[in-house]
Amino acid sequence: MLADQQILRIPGPSPIPPSVNRAMAKPMIGHRGESTSEILADIRPKLKRVFGTEQEVLLLTASGTAGLEAAVINTVAPGEEVLVIVTGAFGERFADICKTYNILTHIVETEWGKAAKPADIAEILETHKGIAAVFMTYCETSTGVLNPIRELAAEIRKKSEALVIVDGVSCVGGVETEMDEWELDIVVSGSQKAFMLPAGLAFIGVSERAWSKIETNRQPRFYLDLIKHRDELQKNSTPYTPALSLLFGLQKALELIEEEGLENVYARHLLMMKMTRAAFKELGIPLLTADEDASPTVTAIKPGDFDAEELRKILKQEFAMEVAGGQKILAKKIFRIGHMGYCSPADLLQAIAAIEIGIAMTGKQIRLGSGVGAAQQEYLNGGRHYDGL
Amino acid sequence: MLADQQILRIPGPSPIPPSVNRAMAKPMIGHRGESTSEILADIRPKLKRVFGTEQEVLLLTASGTAGLEAAVINTVAPGEEVLVIVTGAFGERFADICKTYNILTHIVETEWGKAAKPADIAEILETHKGIAAVFMTYCETSTGVLNPIRELAAEIRKKSEALVIVDGVSCVGGVETEMDEWELDIVVSGSQKAFMLPAGLAFIGVSERAWSKIETNRQPRFYLDLIKHRDELQKNSTPYTPALSLLFGLQKALELIEEEGLENVYARHLLMMKMTRAAFKELGIPLLTADEDASPTVTAIKPGDFDAEELRKILKQEFAMEVAGGQKILAKKIFRIGHMGYCSPADLLQAIAAIEIGIAMTGKQIRLGSGVGAAQQEYLNGGRHYDGL
Repeated sequence: MLADQQILRIPGPSPIPPSVNRAMAKPMIGHRGESTSEILADIRPKLKRVFGTEQEVLLLTASGTAGLEAAVINTVAPGEEVLVIVTGAFGERFADICKTYNILTHIVETEWGKAAKPADIAEILETHKGIAAVFMTYCETSTGVLNPIRELAAEIRKKSEALVIVDGVSCVGGVETEMDEWELDIVVSGSQKAFMLPAGLAFIGVSERAWSKIETNRQPRFYLDLIKHRDELQKNSTPYTPALSLLFGLQKALELIEEEGLENVYARHLLMMKMTRAAFKELGIPLLTADEDASPTVTAIKPGDFDAEELRKILKQEFAMEVAGGQKILAKKIFRIGHMGYCSPADLLQAIAAIEIGIAMTGKQIRLGSGVGAAQQEYLNGGRHYDGL
Repeated sequence: MLADQQILRIPGPSPIPPSVNRAMAKPMIGHRGESTSEILADIRPKLKRVFGTEQEVLLLTASGTAGLEAAVINTVAPGEEVLVIVTGAFGERFADICKTYNILTHIVETEWGKAAKPADIAEILETHKGIAAVFMTYCETSTGVLNPIRELAAEIRKKSEALVIVDGVSCVGGVETEMDEWELDIVVSGSQKAFMLPAGLAFIGVSERAWSKIETNRQPRFYLDLIKHRDELQKNSTPYTPALSLLFGLQKALELIEEEGLENVYARHLLMMKMTRAAFKELGIPLLTADEDASPTVTAIKPGDFDAEELRKILKQEFAMEVAGGQKILAKKIFRIGHMGYCSPADLLQAIAAIEIGIAMTGKQIRLGSGVGAAQQEYLNGGRHYDGL
């Protein structure tokens, strides 16, 4: 096999654009100096646009999970009551964090592979008026579900005073997110998905309503105290030593997103979702999620008559290509294709073509090229911007 | 379109592996110091293996054309008689260099797109016994022809004392080359094709027979004097300042070639040729060359009913993908896909899938996915190394 090749099609980390890698390779600078302040001043408005908010989006040197934990411990104290909407492994993580802090945790769980609906939470919101916060997952990475957070948030607002707290790690930056318009109180994301960076930065958008709660919450926290992060960021600084190379990279990645245009970025992710789904439908291989629940950033496939793990090994061995397996109760039952961040329709055509070969190698009979053909047709239907010369 | 993406499928320069880019980014060192000598000592035997020779393969900081010029002016003096076998634009270049130096230049030219055969040169070798050197092209980049240099060399040896001088720029490193066994006197290559580097280094293998001629040749030359290069290289040095970053990269690239294994590298290139040809045959779009004349590193396609230039523009606009056009008399009539160096079967599947979309966008009716399907089948027939888990 061609040495030094790697085709990364997992739902994060996603590939890094060469210009971002070059930016990250810049020499270190003093993180208390003017140059770092200038970078932060440049990043702040761009990050707000991605989150669809006028509020500050905080930057923590930490993985996404720390962002989720910060969202919990800054807003809720032990003994308070919360609701966690679980649609997969990352919903469970939110619940685990809440329980760790002795927060009274209600859980509404859907069948994994299905999105949560406003009706699912109507009753509990009515019967438990003391719920201080509702935690939900925007894209559930483990199943490829995109939960309808706008509708869920509206339902919560209608019935409750609870804060609406969203894990947007695996889709913000690739899927439309309108924090202010949709009245979301906290949105967390991470650097290693649609932001086209390595892991190491967590992003946390916080509404005014959330700040009121955060400022009165006596739950102890130090590194993850969002007030400190806000107060420093507003002075274009950070409370603790930031991961400077990731800030260099973030500055460049946000520049690339603005160059493409946020709307085009979202359209590209939607198109890649449609292409992927069209391919597997054409091949007659079941998708885990229904069309209306599908995420533009990751697609889970649940083969009935070949082994997902065998396919993954073949792809690795033949093409140095990685797709993800299933997690927890879906382990070994599904495989997942990441199509987020630095990933184009052409990259997806490659992935589908390689997967077709892999499936054929498992012994399953398919018509070679037919999945690719359906994806190509989807591209021609929806994605073309070529309009003559 | 996804910012910062680029899909380079031209017949050179070819894409650079990330580890080679990292190697090239190493800090400069003194080119007269021990570290540079160590790099050259490491490179020399590996380069010989790629050329299939026990002789020294010289390293010039120069583009491939300088390597061709060095091959001419080191071996032949003005007024001497040579034969140039022209099968395309790069054969013409050899002839142009010879004529520039007032060398008496015979030309045997094939129809562009066809390989030269031993029979084509039999007569001229018999009627012109004074021919001092025969110049030929291994892979003719402009047409995607691989000339049968082994057979041509045997024909020359049988009929003449002429030196056999080969332009191997666009295939050595990707296609089997046995300089010693095939009795080739000079083989020239360049860094930017199958060697997976940027342009800037020319490689020149020289036989003992050729050295005898070079040492007595009074044609003036300074920078391109191969004797100086040989004498210094044998001391692990260079006569003039070398392109150090390219040497760093070459060291790494040769390591990658050895890691994959030369035989596997050659098999991969052959497979990519077969996949490409199978795809266009299935699509019913004419290839410029016959199967037996085709090069494993580049394929030229000659569409009858759509515009090659329009296709190239579409590919650039839709996928940031570059394929090459035609040169000289083939300008605007063909397009060429490079599949050499850091290029895998999966990369080729991507290129074919994107090209199918591009062709559909020109208005030509094709069955989407069918070319990809034929290429996939070719992969399954010949390329698989997966053998259970």
